This record gives sequence, C-alpha cells and structure tokens, in this order.
Amino acid sequence: MSILNGYFTHVKAALIKRDRVKLQELFDEIQPYDQAQILIALEADEKKELITCFSNRQLAEIIQEMTLEQQKTIMEEVGLVRSSQVFAEMSVDDAADLLGELGEVKQQEILRLMDDTEAADMRELLEYPEHSAGGLMTTEYIVVPKYYTAEETVAKLRKLAPNAETVYYLYVVDEEEKLKGVLSLRDLIIASPDTRVQDIMYERVVSVPVYMDQEEVAKIMEKYDFLAIPVVDGNQKLIGIITIDDAMDVIKVEATEDFTKMAAITSSGEIQDINTSPLQAASKRIPWLIALLLVGLLSGNIIAKYEETLTDAIFLAVFIPLIAGMAGNTGTQSLAIVVRGLALGEINKGDIPRLLKREAGVGLIIGTVNGLVIALLAWAWKGPAYGFVVGVSLWVTLIVATLAGAVVPLILNRLNIDPAVASGPFITTVNDVISLTIYFSIATLFLTYLM
Amino acid sequence: MSILNGYFTHVKAALIKRDRVKLQELFDEIQPYDQAQILIALEADEKKELITCFSNRQLAEIIQEMTLEQQKTIMEEVGLVRSSQVFAEMSVDDAADLLGELGEVKQQEILRLMDDTEAADMRELLEYPEHSAGGLMTTEYIVVPKYYTAEETVAKLRKLAPNAETVYYLYVVDEEEKLKGVLSLRDLIIASPDTRVQDIMYERVVSVPVYMDQEEVAKIMEKYDFLAIPVVDGNQKLIGIITIDDAMDVIKVEATEDFTKMAAITSSGEIQDINTSPLQAASKRIPWLIALLLVGLLSGNIIAKYEETLTDAIFLAVFIPLIAGMAGNTGTQSLAIVVRGLALGEINKGDIPRLLKREAGVGLIIGTVNGLVIALLAWAWKGPAYGFVVGVSLWVTLIVATLAGAVVPLILNRLNIDPAVASGPFITTVNDVISLTIYFSIATLFLTYLM
Repeated sequence: MSILNGYFTHVKAALIKRDRVKLQELFDEIQPYDQAQILIALEADEKKELITCFSNRQLAEIIQEMTLEQQKTIMEEVGLVRSSQVFAEMSVDDAADLLGELGEVKQQEILRLMDDTEAADMRELLEYPEHSAGGLMTTEYIVVPKYYTAEETVAKLRKLAPNAETVYYLYVVDEEEKLKGVLSLRDLIIASPDTRVQDIMYERVVSVPVYMDQEEVAKIMEKYDFLAIPVVDGNQKLIGIITIDDAMDVIKVEATEDFTKMAAITSSGEIQDINTSPLQAASKRIPWLIALLLVGLLSGNIIAKYEETLTDAIFLAVFIPLIAGMAGNTGTQSLAIVVRGLALGEINKGDIPRLLKREAGVGLIIGTVNGLVIALLAWAWKGPAYGFVVGVSLWVTLIVATLAGAVVPLILNRLNIDPAVASGPFITTVNDVISLTIYFSIATLFLTYLM
Repeated sequence: MSILNGYFTHVKAALIKRDRVKLQELFDEIQPYDQAQILIALEADEKKELITCFSNRQLAEIIQEMTLEQQKTIMEEVGLVRSSQVFAEMSVDDAADLLGELGEVKQQEILRLMDDTEAADMRELLEYPEHSAGGLMTTEYIVVPKYYTAEETVAKLRKLAPNAETVYYLYVVDEEEKLKGVLSLRDLIIASPDTRVQDIMYERVVSVPVYMDQEEVAKIMEKYDFLAIPVVDGNQKLIGIITIDDAMDVIKVEATEDFTKMAAITSSGEIQDINTSPLQAASKRIPWLIALLLVGLLSGNIIAKYEETLTDAIFLAVFIPLIAGMAGNTGTQSLAIVVRGLALGEINKGDIPRLLKREAGVGLIIGTVNGLVIALLAWAWKGPAYGFVVGVSLWVTLIVATLAGAVVPLILNRLNIDPAVASGPFITTVNDVISLTIYFSIATLFLTYLM
C-alpha cells in the first residue's frame, strides 16, 4: 500500500470536494488492481460516492480485481439494476462466480434484468461444479473457420477482441463445433496475409474435459506453459477456455489449502484469513482438536499401562515429551516431502519402493545420530542405564516414525483420501503412541531382565 | 505418463530399427514437454541415438522442458561443440540458468564456442543473483520506436517474432533506452494501420528493478495479471523482461519451500525430492532434529524439577503427552494461518492487533471446549481432583499456545527472518515447554494447598 498511500489521500480530498474530474484523473494513473485496493479501503459513504463516478465498464474492471467477499459488498452498494449492468460488463467467468455467491433469489432477479444471451451464458456456467474446469472457464473465446485467410482472420479479430478474454489463441471448430485446431496470434502475425488458417493452425490441441478438477487443469497448463487451454464436453465440442491468470489463482489457492490441511485446520482446505471471526475460526479447528485429544488419550493409556515401570524409575517420565516430540518431528519431515511430492505429481506408483527404501535409510541415519547424542546426554545426567534405555528407544523410534511419516500419506493417497489431511498434528499424535510404546517396552524389558 | 506409454513403446521400436522418419513423425505428434519426458525415460544408449535425430533447435525446445538436473545429463551426452549450438537455440534465460549450473571451466568453454553477441547476452544474465528479477529475466524482448505506425510495427514484429520470448507485449524506449511505454499485441491488432505507437502505448508501465527478489516479482505479476513484466536497472533503462511461465514456476517452487520450511526440513527451503540420496536427505534434516532435541531437553528438565509432585501423584504422567501434544497442535494451527497470510502478503502491520485479538478469542473458545472435555474424561477415569487439574491446565495451555503460534511468526517476520522457519516442530517444541510448566505448576499448587 505504501505507494498507494499518496493516491489514497488525494482521492479522499477529491471526494470531499466532489471533484469528479480529478477523481477520474487519479484513477486513470493506476492499475485496476490498485484502484480496487483504494475503493475497498474507503469508508462506506465514500465508497458509495466514488462508485457513482465510474462507468459500468470501469466498475466491472475494478470489481474483477477483488475477492468474492469484497465484490459482494460493492454490489450491495450498487443496487439491483446497476448490478445487472455491471455484471454484463464483467468477464462472463468472473460474473458467474460472483452470481453463484449471491443466493438463488438475487441471482434470478439479476439474470432477469440482463440481456438474454448474456444470461444464458451465465446460466450455463453456473451449472458446472465450482472446482471443475467448467467452473473456471469462460465462454468469451474467439472461433475462426479453417478456410479463412490470415488477413480475414485479423480483420475478424479486430472486431471481436474487445469482448474476448484472450486474443492470443484462436480456436478452429468443424460444423459440429468439435475442436479441430488452435492458432496462436504469434503464428498468425508471422504468416503472410493470404495463408489459410488450416495451413497454420496446430491440430494436436491439448484440451481438458469440462468436469476435470481445477487443480489438474492448472497442473497441465503449468506443465505445457499454455496461456489458455480449451475445454470440451463429452462429444469433444468446444465449450469454453481457461486462461492463465485463473490457473495461477488455482495454484496459489491449492498451495494454501495443502498448507492449512497439513496443520489440520480444516479437512476441506477452506481458507481462514484474519477476517474470519473467532467463533467461526474456532469451530473449524475444534473438531480436529477433539479428535486429536481422543487419540492423545491413547498415549495416556500406554503410560497408565506402564505405571509400575514408571513408579520404579520415575526419572523415565523426564524423557516422555522428548521421545514423543522427536518422533513427531521426524514424521512431519518425511510427511511433508511425500505430501508435496504427491501434490506436484512427482511421485508415481513405480517410485514408491525407491521412496520407502530412501526414507528407511534416512530414518536409520537420523536414528543413529540422534540416539547416540541423547544416550550420551542421558548417561551424563542420570547414569548409563538411562543412557542405554533412552538412546535405544530413540533410535528405534526415529526409524519407525520416519517410515510412518512416508507410509501414511501413501496409503491415504491410495484410498483416494487427500494425503494433506494426514496432517502434521495427526502424524504427530500417531507417532506419540508408537514412540511411547517403544520407549516403555524397552524400559520395562531393561528393568525386568537387566537390573 | 499413461497416454505416453503407447508412444514410448513405439519410440523404442523405431529406435531399434533406426527408423528416423518414424521417430520424427512420432515426436511431431506430441508437445515438447512430453517429448522431454520420453527422452528422459530412455536408456543411456537410446538417448544418445535419439539425440542425433533432432536438429539443434528441436533439442533446445525439448531440453527447455526439463529440470536443470535432467538438462545437465543430456548436455553431457551431446559434447561441447553441439552443446554450444544447442545453447544458442535455447531462450537466453533458460540457457543462462543451465550455464550457471555447469561450473566455471565448462561454462567458459561453451561461451567461447558461441556467437559473440549471444555470449555477451549470457554473460550479462549470469551476473545477476539466481533468485533476483535479473536471474529470472530474458533479454529476448521486442522494442519499437514510438513514432512507428501500427502497420510498421506489425511488419517489424513479423521479422523479430521467431526469436522473441513473447510477442504479446512490445516495449517503447527513448534514446537513452529508458522505458517509456508498453503496447500489447491486442491493442496493436485493434488499432487502424496508420495509428502511431505513441498514441496507443500505455505509459504508466509497471516495471520491476533488476535486483528485486523473484518471489516479489511473481506476486506483482500475479496481482496485476500480466503476461510479462519489464525489468529496469537503476537508471530506469529497460534491460529485460520476465514472462508469466517463469513467474508460475517461482510461485510453485516458493509454495513448496514454505511447506518444507514449515516442517523444519531445511532453513533455506531447498527442495528434497525422491531422487535425493538418504545421506543427503538425512544430513539436511539432522541439524534441525538435533536443535529440537536440545530444546526437548528443556521440557525434560521441567519434569525433572517437578519429580516430587510426580512421585506424589504418578498418574499425572499419563497426561504429559496429551497436554504437550494439544499445545503443539493448536499452536501449529495458528502458526499456519499466520505464516501463509504473511507469505501471501495478506497481513499488514495495521492488521496485527486485530489478528492477535482474534487468535486470543479462538484460544479462549478452543481452551474452554477442550478443557471441559478432558476434565470430564479425567474425572471419569481417575476422580475429580485429576479432572480439575488436567482440565484447568489444558484450558490455560491452549489459550497461551494459540497466541504463541500467532506471535512467534509475527516476531520473526519483524526481525526479517522468514517466518516459515518458525516451523511446526519448532512451535511444537516451544509449546511443550510452556504447556508442561503450566501443567506441573497447577498440579503442584493443587497438591500443596488443596489436598
């Protein structure tokens, strides 16, 4: 916001003076994204005033740079009739996303106020699941016939460009609207004016089916470095395109989802930001915490089972959090690598034996080093018997915990459960149980047979 | 790979027959990314054979779709002279990245074998830090004079397009090469042929300084939805551009880095995949684990301090992992939200009081609910005294731990330390210490004054 602060002050001053010319000037100097940031930061009455200065087209451009929540508050200021006009000026995919948030009644009212073809386009887009290719695509793409010359195509482009989401790819379809080819604006520009589209179009088009998950779509676009990708229905009919900016948003959102799932904040990966209320935020986190609390009772149960061992050697209690904690830490490390590898599609079925062998090796090294360190420290602190028991326990624990961190997400992935849900706290709690069992078994054995 | 399996078999068969025509046909049918996947999956001698079938240009295109490690193995097969020819055909930014990996001697040999201007471009790019805008940019952009007409510009574009990284933005500079404007191909196409560039160019260009961190650059491009962004030096001279595909790679890599830092795998966020050897992988993780082990001794120390309390009520030990574990879990949850919020730039200075108030509220609710649940369970298990001590302890612990999870990354961020390093295991271990202190203090107070 730092660069914008100056603008912000000027805008406020111009609003007080109701100086519309100055306001328009100020806004012309900055990007729509920054215009949106300023509009959001204003007080309610200033917002209302400023909105009346913009044309519908301008307001649509600004709104498209906001989050859905922010878009909703602005649309509420605007009123139904103007809302429908602003919707008509937005890209159809952004408009459909916002409409989907408004609730059935308002949605239908706005659609009724809109132009019939526009409304039909939006109704179509509203039907696709939110996280599918269909939910992400726009219907504002450019189609050219394959018999057009480059010159005719450029002429057509000139007419259609203002309403197209991208002009950098043109699509070629046959009589049944089946996708036959794609032509980049780059190749079109290079071609001599009388070349036919069919001679310069690329025929082996990569397209995605309309119900493909949006994360999958984003991965494909990122892999092939496409600026846009066509979406087809079950009959290979072209029904939309997805542009790179929307794919980037998906990549960003999915990374955040993996992150929050990993921390067991929510299983759906729904995002909490600082605007979520404490009660909402707590109610999302509590079910997980209660589940973890119950699993935690298991580890308590193990200690209760070994109460006798513990009474004989009360000092064993000192290493409970350390052993359990280290098991959780190393488990989280292998978990993170496997979860991210699965998310990026870097781990294939054939890689699994190699991956497990690698993690077993890592566990062995980590266990040996850390086991030796703690053995020496515990020896120095409380004598050789504690050094031996604690060292061996940590050694075994770390090997098992490292493997568990890798195996759990692989199993969940196999069961078609998102492995990010095998989150840090979950593996930590599971590893608590494993590690305490190992620790107290070894201690009991030692106390029974060696002392 | 599933769709590619068929191709793979055909390619192998054609290689055995040394059928070059068939090989060329097969490769023409698929995207460069998929060509790269097939080349990588072949045996060493098959690789060698196949590489001889490709033109330098083709090989350059295929190589650009590989990871740097994979690129290196292919270049080693190719030999120095052909390497230098392939380098010349690569985009200059990708070529410079790969050259940077080859070591001083090989780098200089290849540069010597190359065309002088190409070599000069690469030497320049090699000078910028790897993670800066300069390290990410390419010098293959198109510049047009502002007095050109749209028609002249299209004619120039036609000539330059084959060697430009993108043709979708053209840049306008003055006599001193200072950036004066940008013209999108979209606007150029719409313009009538005799319009001058200066009348349709956009003058308030957003550019980035050459030493800006690449993550910052990617955020800006994502925010404004640019397909490319110009890079300028200290004198506002245009020296390169960064394209969207490179920015997407940065976003992907940075998300993985945050993820691995969070799991305390490495502080630099360096990426481990399944190809990292066990020894390498373990050596990255061990320093963190040893650090956590030493911090873990602190929690052991707390228990040792309360050995007397523990001897009086051995059953207290049963709840050690549960109390410590729950503190870690809730701390990780708030940590994840704050770390991701900071990474996405959603948390500004002004938001901090509100954020802390929110997390305090969340902690209060979470603490009350979980405290009540465990109080009832502990009561049922071992009587009202345990119910009271464990319940109150968990209540206080969860409030403090939730706040700690939010405060620690904010403090690190303020100290300019990447808050992702305040990783899950770290906050877990800190919260162990806090929670055990709370638990044993309350238990001791209770035993001393109430029993």
